[in-house]
Amino acid sequence: MRMIKLTDTLSGGSDTVDKKNNPVVVYDTSGPYSDPKIVTDALNGIPRIRETWGRRRKDITPGSEVAMDDYPPFTPYRAKKGKAVTQMFYAKRRMITPEMEYVAIRENQQLELLGLKSYITPDFVRKEVASGQAIIPANINHPEIEPMIIGRKFLVKVNNCIGHPSIEPEVDDMIEKAIWSCKWGGDMLTDISTGSRIHEVRERVIRNCPVPAGTVPAYQALEKVGGEIKALNWPAYRDTLIEQAEQGVDFFVIHAALLKKHLDFTFPRLTGIVSKGGLIMSEWMKQHNEENFLYTHFDDICDIAKSYDAVLLLGNGLHPGSIYDANDSAQYAELRVMGRLVDRAWEQFVQVMTLCSGHIPMNKIHEYIKEQQYHCSGAPLCSFGPATTDISCGYDHITSTIGAAQTAWHGASMIGCIPVKETFESPTYDDIRNSIVAYKIAAHSADIAKGHPGSQVRDNALSKARSESRWKDELNLSIDPERASKYLKETL
Amino acid sequence: MRMIKLTDTLSGGSDTVDKKNNPVVVYDTSGPYSDPKIVTDALNGIPRIRETWGRRRKDITPGSEVAMDDYPPFTPYRAKKGKAVTQMFYAKRRMITPEMEYVAIRENQQLELLGLKSYITPDFVRKEVASGQAIIPANINHPEIEPMIIGRKFLVKVNNCIGHPSIEPEVDDMIEKAIWSCKWGGDMLTDISTGSRIHEVRERVIRNCPVPAGTVPAYQALEKVGGEIKALNWPAYRDTLIEQAEQGVDFFVIHAALLKKHLDFTFPRLTGIVSKGGLIMSEWMKQHNEENFLYTHFDDICDIAKSYDAVLLLGNGLHPGSIYDANDSAQYAELRVMGRLVDRAWEQFVQVMTLCSGHIPMNKIHEYIKEQQYHCSGAPLCSFGPATTDISCGYDHITSTIGAAQTAWHGASMIGCIPVKETFESPTYDDIRNSIVAYKIAAHSADIAKGHPGSQVRDNALSKARSESRWKDELNLSIDPERASKYLKETL
Repeated sequence: MRMIKLTDTLSGGSDTVDKKNNPVVVYDTSGPYSDPKIVTDALNGIPRIRETWGRRRKDITPGSEVAMDDYPPFTPYRAKKGKAVTQMFYAKRRMITPEMEYVAIRENQQLELLGLKSYITPDFVRKEVASGQAIIPANINHPEIEPMIIGRKFLVKVNNCIGHPSIEPEVDDMIEKAIWSCKWGGDMLTDISTGSRIHEVRERVIRNCPVPAGTVPAYQALEKVGGEIKALNWPAYRDTLIEQAEQGVDFFVIHAALLKKHLDFTFPRLTGIVSKGGLIMSEWMKQHNEENFLYTHFDDICDIAKSYDAVLLLGNGLHPGSIYDANDSAQYAELRVMGRLVDRAWEQFVQVMTLCSGHIPMNKIHEYIKEQQYHCSGAPLCSFGPATTDISCGYDHITSTIGAAQTAWHGASMIGCIPVKETFESPTYDDIRNSIVAYKIAAHSADIAKGHPGSQVRDNALSKARSESRWKDELNLSIDPERASKYLKETL
Repeated sequence: MRMIKLTDTLSGGSDTVDKKNNPVVVYDTSGPYSDPKIVTDALNGIPRIRETWGRRRKDITPGSEVAMDDYPPFTPYRAKKGKAVTQMFYAKRRMITPEMEYVAIRENQQLELLGLKSYITPDFVRKEVASGQAIIPANINHPEIEPMIIGRKFLVKVNNCIGHPSIEPEVDDMIEKAIWSCKWGGDMLTDISTGSRIHEVRERVIRNCPVPAGTVPAYQALEKVGGEIKALNWPAYRDTLIEQAEQGVDFFVIHAALLKKHLDFTFPRLTGIVSKGGLIMSEWMKQHNEENFLYTHFDDICDIAKSYDAVLLLGNGLHPGSIYDANDSAQYAELRVMGRLVDRAWEQFVQVMTLCSGHIPMNKIHEYIKEQQYHCSGAPLCSFGPATTDISCGYDHITSTIGAAQTAWHGASMIGCIPVKETFESPTYDDIRNSIVAYKIAAHSADIAKGHPGSQVRDNALSKARSESRWKDELNLSIDPERASKYLKETL
């Protein structure tokens, strides 16, 4: 968290008594990078703060399951045979883990300072995690993270994607962009890059990343089999999952709910299947004429996830690519399967959330969220966008921010940035900043609309500063103090 | 309107029969500026197309009421004594004016092409105007405009402000910005500039403006009395109204609903009164200890408005300056007075709409709109923003777009752009483009969500083009083809 100290209110006139203003504590995702006392070094990674929280030592064992050319710099851990080491498992055992305590403190930041208590206690966090209504993504092999929680009753979080599925990534550029994303408030990072150096890039990103990081494992599995969709198979996918889980990937986007029978539902569509993961799996099913192997092996996937406490993010391979296709039978058919998969994940104590993305008009957003909450028994919803029109090429961050603010208000627990030029290319630094800040505004608007405890304190402090012409305080309290100061200076 | 021709769908394979794609007709606000056959000239102004629609000649008479140093280049007209020349008056007389026919065609653009009919007929337009549910801003002295309609049952419109209340305007810059605003889809223009050359600037802007233009007359009235709020009086204000109405100002923002007794309601506020118009009137009331002269002279204001068919936009002087103050008793007290003023305007056949702006959290937007529709008997609502957080300095266009999309969906008929650096300075060309396009996206999202006839045709055509990789069509159909092409070229 970050404390913003405020100047005194000058009472003016002959009355010389100044009035103190309480400092404002804000949620901060920049990790060690904003701490002047810590010298960071991209080669060695950031401090592994959770390593000493070793409460679960007796459940886990060191050693790698997959043969790698370059062995990871740190020994990976996994659960002992038959054990589950997930936050959900401990929560159901009525154990409050340090992670749960951490997020309770983190979410309550402002109220603590004011001496108030909200309902968000460590035990409340435990209950929400135990019932699957919230998740704490924290792979045991990613001790660098500052734990955070995703759930309807907590602050709305923002995910950011780095990399691009069709551009070969530069290692240093990716690390810099990951840090840049955390600086502007990205609560989570999804690495969607592909290419030959994908393992090394991911290792370096994760070792330098203070927020949970995720991937779409199908992209790398496809690389492993030479890019041939037909050659894709469960062993290659399983190895990818284990390899990534050992590196510390905190969540996997898995398109397991897209079944063979659903493909028929996409014929009346205007834009068919547009999700890259969905395209891979549908192509595989067509070529093999078999059921999606991610669905048939879902219990095996859960088995891996529970050994590392990786979260499963059930991807929607049938997300609508246009307003015309929104909320159609294909999308809902997949959603119902997602609901069943959520239950199966929970049986194995695996933390799970579902994805919603694509193009949905404003009047259909609430409907989709109600259906998702019903079918998925309240599992957290992560929404990328949705875009509320089709015509906004070059302004994708605007149209998707409109949709994201509404989904977040109506119950999405995390919203995923759509970069400015989503349709075209890998985002630049400025694109990342613009889209993350836009999404932080959407998330914050939703927190206020939902009446999240303490969420309005920052707004009130800023408005008070504005009405008293305390410019410095106003700038410090604003969502992007650098840009606000720059604009102010230009004006003066 | 503008027709976008599409290329054929190539069926591929041995089948060589191409499929034709219907052209898409889109609403266009650029007037003569996008017509290669018309040579425009800022000195002489654009063609005065409505001048030959002279249906109302027998009701109007030439001649100016106010003594001006530089007489306007065109003779101003006004209604003959006792006559009303407003669209509402003719609508109530069951006359379908050319303006009503024009907007009916304009709103139906796409469906006409497909050979379909929607409910928006000239007579439907007439009924909506007669009942005050919609307005057609079209001052008889502004024949340059292409008429447009504002109402819940029509396309959501976008207003753009040019000028800045504390910066002396440059004439050519203002004209260029007005044209620029029309190019990007601004349906209406509000000139909020002040300064010594205000009359000349306005004259030049209006003569070159193909969309309705409005002002806040209090700004110029204040100039007339030397900038001294205390010296402000009804005669100065009345002269300003007449002077501007003779120039062709299509709507006046009037803070007539802010009463003396309301000032007490603002004491518990965090940010007090933040509207500039509201501040002027509240200061005047405090210094004189009298009722708001705009309220006491409201019938006189209507008398002027009906003589030129100027629309009254009832400003909300008590709009909340922060989330904390949203939907408070002050705001609602003013709203109830607005409702009474709407009735008084309608009694004189004056077209009227009400303004809503400031900071309102998402969960309170629908409530405000329902109250507005109830108290103001369905008179159109024009909403500037609202901003859904207080902390977005430098990103005002994002936070206000989130609010604007929701207000438009729930019933606002027009949304007003908040420029990127609202808090700081006069917007640049790029700021205008960015904020107008963001608002066009919000308006279009609302049209789709409301199910406006034909509003989804453009989205469907674009999505079809995208799924068939007809890139050129996709770019032409997108909201800002120039930017979309630029990004595509950069990527290639």
